[in-house]
Amino acid sequence: MDEVITLAHGSGGEKSRELVEHLFLPAYSNPYLNPLTDSAILTGGEKIAMTTDSYVVKPLFFPGGDIGRLAVSGTVNDLAVSGACPKFLSVGMILAAGLEMNVLQRIVQSIAATAKEAGVQIVTGDTKVVEHNSADRIFINTTGIGVFPAGRSIPPQKIEAGDCIIASGFIASHGMAVMAERNSLGFIPAIESDVAPLGKMVGGVLQDSENVVHAMRDPTRGGVAATLCEWVTTNTDILLYDQVIPVRADVRAACKILGLDPLFIANEGVVLFAVAQSCAKNVITALQKDSHGCHAVIIGEVRKGIGKVVALTEIGSQRRILMPRGELLPRIC
Amino acid sequence: MDEVITLAHGSGGEKSRELVEHLFLPAYSNPYLNPLTDSAILTGGEKIAMTTDSYVVKPLFFPGGDIGRLAVSGTVNDLAVSGACPKFLSVGMILAAGLEMNVLQRIVQSIAATAKEAGVQIVTGDTKVVEHNSADRIFINTTGIGVFPAGRSIPPQKIEAGDCIIASGFIASHGMAVMAERNSLGFIPAIESDVAPLGKMVGGVLQDSENVVHAMRDPTRGGVAATLCEWVTTNTDILLYDQVIPVRADVRAACKILGLDPLFIANEGVVLFAVAQSCAKNVITALQKDSHGCHAVIIGEVRKGIGKVVALTEIGSQRRILMPRGELLPRIC
Repeated sequence: MDEVITLAHGSGGEKSRELVEHLFLPAYSNPYLNPLTDSAILTGGEKIAMTTDSYVVKPLFFPGGDIGRLAVSGTVNDLAVSGACPKFLSVGMILAAGLEMNVLQRIVQSIAATAKEAGVQIVTGDTKVVEHNSADRIFINTTGIGVFPAGRSIPPQKIEAGDCIIASGFIASHGMAVMAERNSLGFIPAIESDVAPLGKMVGGVLQDSENVVHAMRDPTRGGVAATLCEWVTTNTDILLYDQVIPVRADVRAACKILGLDPLFIANEGVVLFAVAQSCAKNVITALQKDSHGCHAVIIGEVRKGIGKVVALTEIGSQRRILMPRGELLPRIC
Repeated sequence: MDEVITLAHGSGGEKSRELVEHLFLPAYSNPYLNPLTDSAILTGGEKIAMTTDSYVVKPLFFPGGDIGRLAVSGTVNDLAVSGACPKFLSVGMILAAGLEMNVLQRIVQSIAATAKEAGVQIVTGDTKVVEHNSADRIFINTTGIGVFPAGRSIPPQKIEAGDCIIASGFIASHGMAVMAERNSLGFIPAIESDVAPLGKMVGGVLQDSENVVHAMRDPTRGGVAATLCEWVTTNTDILLYDQVIPVRADVRAACKILGLDPLFIANEGVVLFAVAQSCAKNVITALQKDSHGCHAVIIGEVRKGIGKVVALTEIGSQRRILMPRGELLPRIC
């Protein structure tokens, strides 16, 4: 294969076919993809979930992950928090001419490995190539399809007064890993992103019918703050217990140095739950059975209120959490 | 709304929400999209089709269409030629900071109008913003889901000796429209792209069970030549009747001026069919009932052979058609 991507690789002709046959197909191979038809023909279900995300993270490789692992995990997690079982992914790539073939190969291997970890199949794809200066190396879109197992209840995505807010693990790790890498902050060891596909962890919670989940979300762009501000309703408040919010020591240190609040930093390996208080302990037990959920903890509660999100600080005062404005850090995912 | 797109519009915070609530939702509104959950929850089917395409066409607006109409039509057509009935689309946008809001608005209106024309719904979406010089204004990914109506047979996408090759209409119009616009060739009137969603036209052919369709394809990048070279098998040849291949007079003139072969030019409003000879007339009648198929014609045949595609020229000689190499014209779709 060529050493770099050229415009011919996006032509639909010989070079396109070479890329498909020698790179994508060996990495992703499965019965749905292999016929290489215009559309993949899939076993569906009466009720299916569909979600899409484009990934433009910079740099492409960062401690703990890369754009490929991110592109699979982010979309799988969006399916999982809708209550569906993630099944199929499409991968659409926009490449800039001049991209090194070995970079593309590493990314494709990472997509394949993460898809395997997540139990999903790459069933269809598309590759476009633009001029060298018309895109920043590689952008990836993944669109996912999930199915709802028979009898599984779909979370209404509506919190209720009395709910417990649970975080499945340490927050802010992904955003700070990318930020530290991009700005060469030089932490030793490097801050690692926790980017991971969480379908199995979420499935473990949902398969126990005693777990009454009112809302689930993976708090990516805008962080925990944006998710909670979207969840809160006109007649509820969310109260966060500032002191128990799980943040890794290195991530907390980086946030302090940069003057950032971990609540506003993007996550790619965390799910937030709003669950009935009666089952909160049970949900935490289910989460802790999964390696990605072993630090799950109750971080707050929902009360009757007027639509505010507040954090109860160490000294007992309340800090108002508002919907993030502006852009803290572009191209985090 | 702001006059230009800023990085904040991709932040997941307030500006992102503004874009969704004031631009996307009013344009695309439907019961699947409106809840704005992470994943759309859809009525599926036992067997579904999934396809993805990214669109990077330059310029964004060209005679007869724009990137929005293209992004809907291209994906709808990929579903249609798989035999499925196109139903749902996702729209993932990558915007460069500085993109004029009114350009985005025009594109979104075009997406909405084309989706309506095609009978599909935009059910989920995503918007990322990168720095001004990190992308060329706007790239769009659409991923589509189609369902197979009960009892409809799925074309095997395998041609057979004896098949007739049918083109649903004039070829090469899309590619030449974009090329003429990009190179300011100054045809008066301008060469128009025929970009259109063809799900209904294809459905009209498939609903008649007497129509034995062995293969269908929309010959986009690489043109008719690439599709036929992919179709031909080791024990068949495809013979094209050069003189009857339908090319609009203005498109033919432009091709002559530029020394290009219409067979290699991209199409976005044409479907090629390989059908049993016994039903060829019937298929043409079905196509001609649709406005996009009124110029449908038999352009060739499949014979026993050794895997060659040849065109029978005006003077009776044979011209070998090979899989396109290199890149004739990047960013055509």
